Amino acid sequence: MKFLADIDIMPLKGLLDPQGKAVGYSLPSIGIHNVGDVRIGKHMTLEIEAADEAEAKATAETACRKLLANLIMESFEIRVRSI
Amino acid sequence: MKFLADIDIMPLKGLLDPQGKAVGYSLPSIGIHNVGDVRIGKHMTLEIEAADEAEAKATAETACRKLLANLIMESFEIRVRSI
Repeated sequence: MKFLADIDIMPLKGLLDPQGKAVGYSLPSIGIHNVGDVRIGKHMTLEIEAADEAEAKATAETACRKLLANLIMESFEIRVRSI
Repeated sequence: MKFLADIDIMPLKGLLDPQGKAVGYSLPSIGIHNVGDVRIGKHMTLEIEAADEAEAKATAETACRKLLANLIMESFEIRVRSI
C-alpha cells in the first residue's frame, strides 16, 4: 500500500528563529497587525510503500532521525495517511 | 481569542523540486528503500489574535498571498486552531 507522510520540522521552542522574526517584523508593513509569534521550519512529504500505516510511520521516523532533522536544534512531527 | 495557523507552503506539483530529489536520492544510503517521491517546502506557524477562526484564517491567507508564498511557484495550505 502507498502512504503519504507529512513531516513538519521546526526549530525547537526556546531557540531563536531569525527567519520567523524577520517575517514577524515585516507583517505590519503589509497591513497585518494581529500576528504575534512567527516560526518557520520545513515541510516535507514522502511517498512511502509499506504494508501498513505503522510501518510507513516508522520509515518516516527513521528518515527524520537519521537524515532530515537536526535533533539538537529541531523537532519533528509526522502525520501519515494512505493514498 | 488566540489562534495558531499552521501553514504549509510547497512547490507546485509539476515543478521540479531539486531539494526533494536530493533527499530522495540520499535515502537508500541510510537503508531506506521504500520511499518514492519526496517534496520539500516550508512550514510556518503564526500566532494570530482574532475574533473568530474565520478572521484568523483570513489573516493567514492575506499573509500568504502578500508575503509568504510565491504563487507562481508555490501553493499553500492553512489549518487554524484556537490556542
